[in-house]
Amino acid sequence: MERTYIKDLKDHVSQEVLIKGWVDVRRDQGKLIFLDFRDVSGKVQGVILPAPKNATGPSAAHEVGVILRPECVVSVKGKVNQRPPKNIQKDKQNGDIELEILEIELLSKARELPFELGSEVNLDTYLDNLPFTLRDDKHKAIFRVQAVIINAFREYLNTQGFTEFQAPKLIGEDAEGGANSFNIEYFGHVAHLGQSPQLYKQIMVGVFERVFAAGNVYRAEKHSTTRHINEYTSLDIEMGFIKDHTDVMKMERNILAYIVKVLKEKCAAEFKLLGATIPEIPEEIPAVKLREGQEIIKKEHGIDCSTEPDLEPQHERWLCEYAKKKWDSDFIFVTHFPVSKRPFYTYEDENDLGFTKGADLLFRGIEITTLAQRIHDYDKLVESMKRKGLDPEKFRYYLQAFKYGMPPHGGFGIGLERLTAKFLGIDNIKEATLFPRDINRIDNLLSS
Amino acid sequence: MERTYIKDLKDHVSQEVLIKGWVDVRRDQGKLIFLDFRDVSGKVQGVILPAPKNATGPSAAHEVGVILRPECVVSVKGKVNQRPPKNIQKDKQNGDIELEILEIELLSKARELPFELGSEVNLDTYLDNLPFTLRDDKHKAIFRVQAVIINAFREYLNTQGFTEFQAPKLIGEDAEGGANSFNIEYFGHVAHLGQSPQLYKQIMVGVFERVFAAGNVYRAEKHSTTRHINEYTSLDIEMGFIKDHTDVMKMERNILAYIVKVLKEKCAAEFKLLGATIPEIPEEIPAVKLREGQEIIKKEHGIDCSTEPDLEPQHERWLCEYAKKKWDSDFIFVTHFPVSKRPFYTYEDENDLGFTKGADLLFRGIEITTLAQRIHDYDKLVESMKRKGLDPEKFRYYLQAFKYGMPPHGGFGIGLERLTAKFLGIDNIKEATLFPRDINRIDNLLSS
Repeated sequence: MERTYIKDLKDHVSQEVLIKGWVDVRRDQGKLIFLDFRDVSGKVQGVILPAPKNATGPSAAHEVGVILRPECVVSVKGKVNQRPPKNIQKDKQNGDIELEILEIELLSKARELPFELGSEVNLDTYLDNLPFTLRDDKHKAIFRVQAVIINAFREYLNTQGFTEFQAPKLIGEDAEGGANSFNIEYFGHVAHLGQSPQLYKQIMVGVFERVFAAGNVYRAEKHSTTRHINEYTSLDIEMGFIKDHTDVMKMERNILAYIVKVLKEKCAAEFKLLGATIPEIPEEIPAVKLREGQEIIKKEHGIDCSTEPDLEPQHERWLCEYAKKKWDSDFIFVTHFPVSKRPFYTYEDENDLGFTKGADLLFRGIEITTLAQRIHDYDKLVESMKRKGLDPEKFRYYLQAFKYGMPPHGGFGIGLERLTAKFLGIDNIKEATLFPRDINRIDNLLSS
Repeated sequence: MERTYIKDLKDHVSQEVLIKGWVDVRRDQGKLIFLDFRDVSGKVQGVILPAPKNATGPSAAHEVGVILRPECVVSVKGKVNQRPPKNIQKDKQNGDIELEILEIELLSKARELPFELGSEVNLDTYLDNLPFTLRDDKHKAIFRVQAVIINAFREYLNTQGFTEFQAPKLIGEDAEGGANSFNIEYFGHVAHLGQSPQLYKQIMVGVFERVFAAGNVYRAEKHSTTRHINEYTSLDIEMGFIKDHTDVMKMERNILAYIVKVLKEKCAAEFKLLGATIPEIPEEIPAVKLREGQEIIKKEHGIDCSTEPDLEPQHERWLCEYAKKKWDSDFIFVTHFPVSKRPFYTYEDENDLGFTKGADLLFRGIEITTLAQRIHDYDKLVESMKRKGLDPEKFRYYLQAFKYGMPPHGGFGIGLERLTAKFLGIDNIKEATLFPRDINRIDNLLSS
């Protein structure tokens, strides 16, 4: 007999079916044993009826049923019955049917659970028990949404002439000269874990013009916050032959619009379960220069930050509130951060010297991307490195791309986990990261 | 004026167009300057005609043209002319048209090249100069094919109820107890780079039943061979509720068949350029047990390896030859390797004790996958760890998945770079790896 997925049981009323999955809940009610089953597609209530009166003992199903507990894995033959009208549970998957259990095969016995699946537990307990706690509906919903986001990202770029590439994570020099990279013992040398595929995606623009990479990046940041993790998935694009950073802004807007479209098609149930709203993406995301944004903050909140080179978290929240109020937009670009605060490869605006052709994208109160046009001229790039105190000799591999002709180009990176969290209204990034690593945790190791 | 891609020029004969790209080749012929241009879509020959007789000096296009060299990035306005019949180059992209160059804008000047693009250079020179050498047609073709393979892999699995997940690469314990993992300084602890997502994908079967992950894995192997690299991309699947390993074999066959189908649709030109043949996937890939394979080797080649626990490279080549001869198949599964040679989580065949329910897939002379059913019973898994001399306490995080009910399951991993190389008939894995890392090389660092 072929397996029927639980979501399809409603099409088999009055038929015998075979389902496979986990015992989700068990309830004993007099001579009845109720067993809720769960598979990847959903849940259904099953019941083991008492053996007929003329039987000499309990039914075979009953004999297995009494030893089952939640998380036991089973294969169940049963008959799909329509529930009597008074027992119908509206708004619940399979709330109008019930599986009359005829046979149960126990495929894997579960031990006693540490706590009920879906219990409110603190974050550490949740993380210590991930192989179990991830099975809860809400957490499954988060990572289903995440899978849909990354797939939609790639799907859209494949329609726009982008080529996917595999960026290396094992790198030699720390590109940005920061102290935030992890050291690796590499055959007697010290290597590092890449903080971003930035230099490689620029190199690849010289090869394929438009490229993307979606993979892990690493930040050896010592603080443990609700916004940061030490290993995350970066969705990175880089595109050649742009006019300027506004081409990248348009591309990012279109990528997000496509992701939202797919989320609406595929993940409405997940958003509902998590009480989250899928955002609308405006035709054009509003954009202000940093200095204009600071003027807005001064006018609206009386705080003068007009000479600061960056936005503080509170400023980001205020500008998002303003964008919502003024343009009814969940998103706002802030462009033209100072050259001094941006990496060496960022393009300076010829018409606004000291400021860069780039932007941060703010979404629901937080920055989710930094994008920019990059310097494509070899001499200017070397000069910019020197101004930042970097040694061009250390970048000679990367610089080859520029020696041998690079088009005007730009791109961005966006953290998959942060995007998932913001879409779903999850406060702590660790809940939107499947197996989060932080200063105190790798699985249940380190400080635990 | 909108940019026209070079591949579309044939639709614009007698029209003025704007193209953008690189100078591929320059040839001066008397008063004519021939410039071949290249963009992501292809190549076209351009020509700067002499200025009209009544002109007082050279044309504007000529002034720019004389300073151009290969790899200069340009924006070119020109007129698409049909070539006279005697000048038509058949079998060449745009061999029947020519671009009469009217205006050239130099977007980025190239320095003198270290050697001509596409020159036969030794592997080290190729690798030292990747930002330049990757621009060659053949190398671009390799990595276009690679992008199509990984995308087809994910596309197929998404139609088969698999959920993608992001496996961590930063791990605590070295799961398989081997010495081949890289050490990372992790906030005062020693962490490792994952050699495979094996334990995580098993955990995820408990969550989503069918999962896949495509990401980097790391092997700290000290040897530098044509088959091994230290960082590669692993295409990993794991599926629950299987009958046994043959379900995984069928799934792998179907994945490969889909990849081949897509390669035929999208990459015929790349295979032709590289002189490679897209393999056919039989409806059912032939399978022999290890001991049967060893009998075949004895009969066909007179070598008795019938008590050895594994196949040597020569044995793999012989079995592939046999499969080609006997079943006209480029692929053959070898099943039932001994328990002693397989990892602790591999399932022992109840009907063939001492041997495992798993297989190696051989393709054109080499193993490309190891697949298997896994142990899903908690007690058996702990017992197997102990027999292998592993400490179950170190696996307590992973073991939670089994304590709380795991279905029968199995899966495989396949190296994207090795698969790309074997499909394309590339001998050295380093040429099918975009930025290969080995004992002597990270980019052009380490021993260089």
